[in-house]
Amino acid sequence: MQLLDGKSCSQQIRQEIAQRVAEIKATGSRVPHLAAVLVGNDGASETYVAFKVKDCQEVGFDSTLIRMDENISEQELLDKIGELNADDSIDGFIVQLPLPAHIDENKVILAIDPKKDVDGFCPENVGNLILGLPTYVSATPNGIMELLRRYQIETEGKHCVVLGRSNIVGTPMAILMSRKSNPGNATVTIAHSRTKNLAALCRSADILIVAIGKTEFVTADMVKDGAVVIDVGQTRVRDSSKKSGFRMVGDVDFDKVKDKCSYITYVTGGVGPMTRASLLQNTLKAHSRL
Amino acid sequence: MQLLDGKSCSQQIRQEIAQRVAEIKATGSRVPHLAAVLVGNDGASETYVAFKVKDCQEVGFDSTLIRMDENISEQELLDKIGELNADDSIDGFIVQLPLPAHIDENKVILAIDPKKDVDGFCPENVGNLILGLPTYVSATPNGIMELLRRYQIETEGKHCVVLGRSNIVGTPMAILMSRKSNPGNATVTIAHSRTKNLAALCRSADILIVAIGKTEFVTADMVKDGAVVIDVGQTRVRDSSKKSGFRMVGDVDFDKVKDKCSYITYVTGGVGPMTRASLLQNTLKAHSRL
Repeated sequence: MQLLDGKSCSQQIRQEIAQRVAEIKATGSRVPHLAAVLVGNDGASETYVAFKVKDCQEVGFDSTLIRMDENISEQELLDKIGELNADDSIDGFIVQLPLPAHIDENKVILAIDPKKDVDGFCPENVGNLILGLPTYVSATPNGIMELLRRYQIETEGKHCVVLGRSNIVGTPMAILMSRKSNPGNATVTIAHSRTKNLAALCRSADILIVAIGKTEFVTADMVKDGAVVIDVGQTRVRDSSKKSGFRMVGDVDFDKVKDKCSYITYVTGGVGPMTRASLLQNTLKAHSRL
Repeated sequence: MQLLDGKSCSQQIRQEIAQRVAEIKATGSRVPHLAAVLVGNDGASETYVAFKVKDCQEVGFDSTLIRMDENISEQELLDKIGELNADDSIDGFIVQLPLPAHIDENKVILAIDPKKDVDGFCPENVGNLILGLPTYVSATPNGIMELLRRYQIETEGKHCVVLGRSNIVGTPMAILMSRKSNPGNATVTIAHSRTKNLAALCRSADILIVAIGKTEFVTADMVKDGAVVIDVGQTRVRDSSKKSGFRMVGDVDFDKVKDKCSYITYVTGGVGPMTRASLLQNTLKAHSRL
């Protein structure tokens, strides 16, 4: 079993980006600039946004964190998005999800200029992905593809089972893996809560990508010997033995599953850092489009 | 075995649309108006466009056929699209594909206003489909979903194998069948030219949707007893015994396969008429959005 080390892989990507930023600076040009909008004070969201700002600093991007009160109206948020769309000094921006219940997330996503939508959530960018046109691929699927690419995992003709059909992970992941590309060219099955004989289906997978948000759902009996297992799940579980008061648990029962795998990611240091690196890649892309 | 009769099903849809047009007329409003752009004189394209115009007449839509010489420049076609985008009397329009080799199809598709893109080919509409937002679903997948719906084929939890991963049929079909909807909620496998053990995979399908453009590719040994088989293939094969000089051949070896199926479509009177009806449905939708 070899660990797919998203941490070191993402470090490598960050170094490559930092190198590119140095080149941009050397020409006297403006460096890439990412803005992040954070509504309210959700703990997990605070952490994610803080990471994104830190990542920008590390590679030499400019970054702006825009905090808004959790009681702002939908219109106030839409107005802010309008400002960011129009601000030529900002290459790309993200609105950290989830939003408070009184704000329509779809409305917010649709308001973002697709050219600045570095999360890749807008219909136009999702559609470009399907059509094989230049686009911002949403961060998690993009990060997983990058991980497979850098570890030179063979995907062509393999059976890839994607557990989960969400708009931002499962569905785009399935499409990317089925496309005529490398990584890609896999026979892909999209499985979900209504799938019958799920264990048998998972056992038929050469590559198993799990994104359902159910802790330790995938057990050893669901994994074929020699499979590649990618765990997207990241659930905070209370743990008083930890300083933070919680620990992260994946969708895969790592300890039991790992010895059956050729490659596997761990809940921390796996898909997470690759997702973070993808946002930087998309922001760099947004900058070079100018 | 029961034939999925796209012809009678599409007739029913056309009647429903005609009824709706009569209601629109009764209010004194303008009826839906579809324009079709035909570049050059390709035989198949001529036929398809003629059908589309005829369908419009039958349900009471206005229609406009715009013929352009096969030697027009890309810019001339883009200018025409600009005109159609701006013309308030036209609800939706299509540009018949394929286009002559000197014209970039993607550029043309991207020039169409997504609100008038009744073929559902624009990135924004494809993305809306993935995101479950209101959209124009491209005609063939939409027609197949309608056929499954009207025949009340059970799809939830079934294994649906989609053979073919094209942008306009295979990929959107796979997504629609995997979505939380009815029809939908199927476990979907996307198979293609790089898929290994294709026959065995097809035999595992409760629902087999074939869109690869290879005549009679699916043989009896590839079909499970009781499967639902949808044949999207329509290839013209020379046949001097026919008045037209050709006959249509599907991707499925119908005569050999049919007795194994619970439901099956035939190459003519199956998916084709449903595709045509879908364009009318999308045009009506474009009209009601005004």
